[in-house]
Amino acid sequence: MNEVQPSQPAAPTLDRATALARIREAVGPAGWLDAPEDVAPHLADQRGLFTGACAAVVRPASTEAVAAVVGACAAAGIGIVPQGGNTGLVGGSVPFPGFDGILLSLIRMNTVRAIDPLNNTITVDAGCILADIQAAAAEADRLFPLSLGAEGSCRIGGNLSTNAGGVNVLRYGNARELVLGLEVVLPDGRVWDGLRGLRKDNTGYALKHLFVGAEGTLGVITGAVLKLFPRPRDVQTAFAAIRDPAAATELLARLREGTGDSVTGYEILPRVGIDITLQHVPDIVDPLDGRYDQYLLIELSGPDAAGGLRPALETVLEKALEDGLVLDATIAESTAQARALWKLREELPFAQTHEGGSIKHDVAVPVSRVPDFLREATAAVEAALPGVRVFAFGHVGDGNIHFNLSEPKQGWTTQAFLGEWERMNRVVHDIVVSMGGSISAEHGIGRIKKAELVHYRSPVELDLMRTLKAALDPQGIMNPGMVL
Amino acid sequence: MNEVQPSQPAAPTLDRATALARIREAVGPAGWLDAPEDVAPHLADQRGLFTGACAAVVRPASTEAVAAVVGACAAAGIGIVPQGGNTGLVGGSVPFPGFDGILLSLIRMNTVRAIDPLNNTITVDAGCILADIQAAAAEADRLFPLSLGAEGSCRIGGNLSTNAGGVNVLRYGNARELVLGLEVVLPDGRVWDGLRGLRKDNTGYALKHLFVGAEGTLGVITGAVLKLFPRPRDVQTAFAAIRDPAAATELLARLREGTGDSVTGYEILPRVGIDITLQHVPDIVDPLDGRYDQYLLIELSGPDAAGGLRPALETVLEKALEDGLVLDATIAESTAQARALWKLREELPFAQTHEGGSIKHDVAVPVSRVPDFLREATAAVEAALPGVRVFAFGHVGDGNIHFNLSEPKQGWTTQAFLGEWERMNRVVHDIVVSMGGSISAEHGIGRIKKAELVHYRSPVELDLMRTLKAALDPQGIMNPGMVL
Repeated sequence: MNEVQPSQPAAPTLDRATALARIREAVGPAGWLDAPEDVAPHLADQRGLFTGACAAVVRPASTEAVAAVVGACAAAGIGIVPQGGNTGLVGGSVPFPGFDGILLSLIRMNTVRAIDPLNNTITVDAGCILADIQAAAAEADRLFPLSLGAEGSCRIGGNLSTNAGGVNVLRYGNARELVLGLEVVLPDGRVWDGLRGLRKDNTGYALKHLFVGAEGTLGVITGAVLKLFPRPRDVQTAFAAIRDPAAATELLARLREGTGDSVTGYEILPRVGIDITLQHVPDIVDPLDGRYDQYLLIELSGPDAAGGLRPALETVLEKALEDGLVLDATIAESTAQARALWKLREELPFAQTHEGGSIKHDVAVPVSRVPDFLREATAAVEAALPGVRVFAFGHVGDGNIHFNLSEPKQGWTTQAFLGEWERMNRVVHDIVVSMGGSISAEHGIGRIKKAELVHYRSPVELDLMRTLKAALDPQGIMNPGMVL
Repeated sequence: MNEVQPSQPAAPTLDRATALARIREAVGPAGWLDAPEDVAPHLADQRGLFTGACAAVVRPASTEAVAAVVGACAAAGIGIVPQGGNTGLVGGSVPFPGFDGILLSLIRMNTVRAIDPLNNTITVDAGCILADIQAAAAEADRLFPLSLGAEGSCRIGGNLSTNAGGVNVLRYGNARELVLGLEVVLPDGRVWDGLRGLRKDNTGYALKHLFVGAEGTLGVITGAVLKLFPRPRDVQTAFAAIRDPAAATELLARLREGTGDSVTGYEILPRVGIDITLQHVPDIVDPLDGRYDQYLLIELSGPDAAGGLRPALETVLEKALEDGLVLDATIAESTAQARALWKLREELPFAQTHEGGSIKHDVAVPVSRVPDFLREATAAVEAALPGVRVFAFGHVGDGNIHFNLSEPKQGWTTQAFLGEWERMNRVVHDIVVSMGGSISAEHGIGRIKKAELVHYRSPVELDLMRTLKAALDPQGIMNPGMVL
């Protein structure tokens, strides 16, 4: 490893036309799309930031078919862009312009293969929609806790390939923590069957963790064994105005201690975010009477139907009111009230789209550094771009802040403001990295953060990643140009 | 990756004598042991099953010194066996006979570098003793939950390198799940600083998971950022006679639902195990009056001091008594009573040493298959070796059973019985693997399970592991001969 010298990729053993014909045969007529109108939806991301090209969209319906497709591509040196629900935010599931390989869509592989309530596992195809997996778990009286905005259309293979986060990470972990076993088609077309549903297994290297979060650059995830949990029967949702961001971290520690470590959601929202949401989104209610700088949306949940969380929550909040950490608070009295509180949080990013151009940062710092980060980063961007409006919100319980900047109210065009993106990146990410933080907490690298990754990561770490890529995909055919 | 062709290791650039002199200088007099009496304790495992050799025992006191040692070894092609507390059970931390490289002991790197209660993290040197880390966490009013028999002498670098399990896995996960960041000296002597204390960080491949569980074959872990949790303030311990092993999995699901998912310990013990423990170990009390085939040791714990776990536990146990899952039960009324129940469990393996030769299997199956496994494996070994006595106990909540066989009471010498180890392995492991299980749930592979790994793992999986080993350690100097 002293020098990264990928073994010279073997010259293709198959000509391109023959390979494409084999692929077409392997997936059948329903699995091959090459008419422009059929292909187009796969070649643009949902936000319309990226468009690309490909020779064909290929939609295999089985692991064997995926293996045949990848094997033919490997033999001919044809590039492969894997795609699930195509809901990613970093351009990782859309090919580059001029790409002449195949787009490998997993959407026809959408079967729940097995469910084992006593083992608390569910085995699924990679193309299953996240919400369908949640529903299958619920039918078996279990919880699959991965939950995020795109859950109605994102697919689990993409969730795993990007190590998706979402609103339940605090209690249940990221997608990585929710997977026990994987089935992967390797870059040479062989199938690795690692579909084990075990809580303990110390037999060699942790191969599954290589593929989770690799954004399709090391192989194609085709199936997974996922962890299930008892269903929550007691859910409490509260909304609290807090003294300042430091109060958020202090209150989190108290809540974890005082409620049996039952905090499943913990989101920070600034007053300015509530104001624009009230302004732009219908049917939003301001939960508290007064006006305060910072608020928390708090969710506790547990499987015990005896109802112990409500009094525990009240006790912690009352003490925090006495101590001045909390300035005012309300607890939802119904599921409808709880939904209304969550809606305020969920609509905030949408409301921001009405405020002109937005420069977004998905960052994380140690939970203890969140107050410092918010103070320093806000001051730094305001100094660097006078008039910029900071909307910082998100998963403060994990140290993950969506630090979004809206254009000044006067004196800027949207285009000119968005032209400041890279300069603002540097201002914000320098502070993040100085605190030992992450420049991509949950969205991944894809194409849009590649340059930032190279800028901030040590040469040793980049070299390690390149060594792994070269070892597993020496031809560089898997999701070419992404991540590294 | 079509064929595993590790890049040809470069010819050593440094002669051996110069390299050893550099190492000696890098670690200083206190870090270099070559007198036979000083070296000997490092060259045998604690059970006395393995002894080996080395050119010297090297004990660096800093990451920089480890890097200098490994760099010199890499330049001269000298092998390295990393060692922590040397408490492993698979011979992975002791060199082979005839080994002429160095034994790299981490025991002088034993500083707690930092603790951050609000971020719930502790940063430690790899040579810290596990119990010292638990104590440092407790001083900061936090819990570091990794707990196992050897905790008074094992060291965290070894715990991470073997992905240690223990008694709290059910609630807190294996060692792998408890590590947020790592510092690793790579096989070429460079330092990878991945000491990040983040809950969310999606910036490239999950490098830390490569080194956790790799048993020192991919690099030397020198430091780690570990997760902390709220301290349990409410701990309930119960002992229950159960109808059969199937009742154990059913009761576990009920307990997780009925107690806010607070089950932290869940161990199964057979009557025969209690009998030999009563017979051979002083001060052991039989917790229940009657005699039953199978028992459970149950521990619930949570951070809430309000005392809600006791009534929740009673409710679940009463219903299980009514339903016939539980035949009798007792709940500890004091810490002393709880300690006595745990002592019965902890002394069982010791009691077994008085029953002649023991053939051990550390296996896991899906939790739902534990009853089938116990029935089928017991019948199979009794048929294969009439008179053999099965002592199957352990972490049934994780599907992890220590399936230990004692020699028949008559007709066998210990030596002859132990000669059946490989044949018994095949009988037990065939059943484990047929159920999608693991032949090493928590102890690892080391040297004693290498042949079993090769026997049961698919060629694809073995090839993937070898590809990683060749990519990261092309000279094969890291813990040579272990795992693969």
